[in-house]
Amino acid sequence: MAESKPAFDGLDRVMHEKARLGILTCLLKKRDGLTFNDLKAACDLTDGNLSRHLETLAEAGLVEITKGKNGRRPQTLACLTAEGAKRFVDYLALLEGIVAAALESADAPAKPKVRFSTT
Amino acid sequence: MAESKPAFDGLDRVMHEKARLGILTCLLKKRDGLTFNDLKAACDLTDGNLSRHLETLAEAGLVEITKGKNGRRPQTLACLTAEGAKRFVDYLALLEGIVAAALESADAPAKPKVRFSTT
Repeated sequence: MAESKPAFDGLDRVMHEKARLGILTCLLKKRDGLTFNDLKAACDLTDGNLSRHLETLAEAGLVEITKGKNGRRPQTLACLTAEGAKRFVDYLALLEGIVAAALESADAPAKPKVRFSTT
Repeated sequence: MAESKPAFDGLDRVMHEKARLGILTCLLKKRDGLTFNDLKAACDLTDGNLSRHLETLAEAGLVEITKGKNGRRPQTLACLTAEGAKRFVDYLALLEGIVAAALESADAPAKPKVRFSTT
């Protein structure tokens, strides 16, 4: 007997990594973008980790990185692209459905043990 | 200005990996366990991948692996431990809350762009 294939398979690996989920969630809340330092504080990541994750997200077309200045100080701004916002919301909606279905199945009572010899 | 830290941080890395999410979801539906072959078909994984993920889940105390026989043929049965079922349901509930909050923030209208020079 085969079970139906879990829908988790459709989840995008780039967005699914949990630090990137955090970054994307922060950026979804602030569609006008967040500076590198704000994002670093919000996500509790090191400079190196945040840089690496932002690079991955930018390569996937989800985030746009702008290097600019705030007065005389260099400043990096990260912003969700329009496509990135759409794809992340789609990902969240898919995940929401999968999680709800999984939680629902958890409420079902366990069936009696199958006969299975351990000799 | 710092954003509130995303709750994704609390998600268990062992369970969050998407193939393992699929395996755990299948096992949550079948609390009496699934054979290696059923699980392989249900999750669309290779023998090697499934073995590796089951080992990780067993090491974390989430899944119990029993090597037995079905008639004369050797058979491996994977089953969620009681602790594993509890932890996975807790993980799903946490994820559900985070995803709902993130989706809610997506509905908020974008604020006007901040002033940010790109010279």
